[in-house]
Amino acid sequence: MKEILLAHGGGGEETRQLIESLFVKHFGNPMLERLEDAAIISGNPQLAFTTDSFTVSPLFFNGGNIGKLAVAGTVNDLAVMGARPLYLSSAFIIEEGFPFEHMQTIVASMAEELQKSGATIITGDTKVVPRGSADGLFINTTGIGQVVYPGLSAGNVQPGDVLVVSGTVGDHGACILAQREGIELESDLQSDCATLWPLIEMVLTTEIEIHAMRDPTRGGLAAVLNEWATTSQVGMDIQEAAIPIRQEVMGLCELLGMEATSLACEGRVVFAVPQPQAEALLAVLHTHPLGRDAQIIGTVTSAHPGQVILHTEYGARRILEPPQGELLPRIC
Amino acid sequence: MKEILLAHGGGGEETRQLIESLFVKHFGNPMLERLEDAAIISGNPQLAFTTDSFTVSPLFFNGGNIGKLAVAGTVNDLAVMGARPLYLSSAFIIEEGFPFEHMQTIVASMAEELQKSGATIITGDTKVVPRGSADGLFINTTGIGQVVYPGLSAGNVQPGDVLVVSGTVGDHGACILAQREGIELESDLQSDCATLWPLIEMVLTTEIEIHAMRDPTRGGLAAVLNEWATTSQVGMDIQEAAIPIRQEVMGLCELLGMEATSLACEGRVVFAVPQPQAEALLAVLHTHPLGRDAQIIGTVTSAHPGQVILHTEYGARRILEPPQGELLPRIC
Repeated sequence: MKEILLAHGGGGEETRQLIESLFVKHFGNPMLERLEDAAIISGNPQLAFTTDSFTVSPLFFNGGNIGKLAVAGTVNDLAVMGARPLYLSSAFIIEEGFPFEHMQTIVASMAEELQKSGATIITGDTKVVPRGSADGLFINTTGIGQVVYPGLSAGNVQPGDVLVVSGTVGDHGACILAQREGIELESDLQSDCATLWPLIEMVLTTEIEIHAMRDPTRGGLAAVLNEWATTSQVGMDIQEAAIPIRQEVMGLCELLGMEATSLACEGRVVFAVPQPQAEALLAVLHTHPLGRDAQIIGTVTSAHPGQVILHTEYGARRILEPPQGELLPRIC
Repeated sequence: MKEILLAHGGGGEETRQLIESLFVKHFGNPMLERLEDAAIISGNPQLAFTTDSFTVSPLFFNGGNIGKLAVAGTVNDLAVMGARPLYLSSAFIIEEGFPFEHMQTIVASMAEELQKSGATIITGDTKVVPRGSADGLFINTTGIGQVVYPGLSAGNVQPGDVLVVSGTVGDHGACILAQREGIELESDLQSDCATLWPLIEMVLTTEIEIHAMRDPTRGGLAAVLNEWATTSQVGMDIQEAAIPIRQEVMGLCELLGMEATSLACEGRVVFAVPQPQAEALLAVLHTHPLGRDAQIIGTVTSAHPGQVILHTEYGARRILEPPQGELLPRIC
């Protein structure tokens, strides 16, 4: 590896390799190696801690902007670890000449999005770099949450579990892609960018047992399922026809030769739950606007550990590979 | 205000205005308004929480690099709030094509610097942006510490207090400036970039009472003193000749028409302590390599509240204004 490639930031295999060869090697501690969405700090209460830098382009997209995304993204990383989002930091790297009006819109979106989880921004930082040293605006948000449902982990997915996704996949990735490529869609495709805490909190207050949750951002559904299969050393059987994908996302993928299952979501969550809980979970999800399109998409097996198998409507099978290559730079 | 200017990131008056008109306005909560180096989260134990994005240019400088700076900077922001640094996140925004070898050097420096405080990096994020969308590398570090000496605050400086600085001021700023302008110095001027926790921990284990601590980074000593004077509504009388400034920093400032008191330090701390404690503090600081050049630089008074008065050797007086204008972009 001579230089950093776009693929190293894609959230797929190359990102994993970079993390292992660089960060785990030097910072090496058990928490980093787990590659969860948030680190867990033991104590009473147990805390979750997570960070994300947002470099999305364009900064304003159908369904949100970088500010909404920065708050929802970090809050979601806490939520899927079973943690109530409490405190966020926000750090801005702004290119000289960036319109103040845009800053106001973006910061107002962040404030609005915070209200959906009740988290507050209590510390921040602002850097301005000369024209040409950054592209508009980058935002880092780092969050602290209180774990209310402990034990969730990518390593906790078990044979017999049922896999449930809370809504259509790939909307955010397709929306950004269409806007960036200047593709006019006939429909009004929006990013699914949303704070998941209200949905997840509702699920956590039921008696439903959950083994793992994850929001499929960079690398999409394919990345989450493969990470779970590898970390938990289980196999997965996914019914392709059961994966909820919007017609226009499907069309865009065909046009551009992409897989909807590798496109980022920013307001979806994947659950692994014991089989007897699956229907109850689905029923609960369907009562919430963010879970309206929830579907059972497959099951976990002890056969073919580490492999995610996609079953087509016509009985064919293929391996759903972990996403590789450049994917989409600056998707979040 | 139409657009964001470099001055908005300088750490001086314009930064303060931006924070107030944008972040405090929208995120408004008592913690943000205090503008301390870290937010304090009440509870048992009390936690400190702080974030910083680092955009320093050049990435490698005499005495350190962006990685060392990113760890020391965030650890120091916790330390000056009386908090033992515990956990850090690190988020990288890397420009496509950045040499992997540089990443290794930088990450190794971070790991080495962490050992000085015992803090660990437990969560992270990596984004890669296309060539031209960022300048090399930006790093965000966000830290959590456990408050071991509560009550420190920019609003807690009291008339009668003595002001102590732990070493020469402006070394980091001058070093970056010289390197950036291609000025060859006869001496080997190094950035003072250092983790202050060992020095501060040593002071905190004594019986010495402390009212406020602050590391004078962007905006330098002048920014810290003015912030304290404003927030605590006190005046300050500073003996200009007592401020420790290296000969070569002084020379560079004369050459470029700058004030050493406005140049950033990255391994210095300013203390406000009750008068009877000042000599004891000085004696303790002098026993540590990071406090070898510590000096008493002035006193706090109830006269001229909000004003920092500089007394020259010849009996003249002038106001030490809070830094304004562009200062030095990408100093940290």
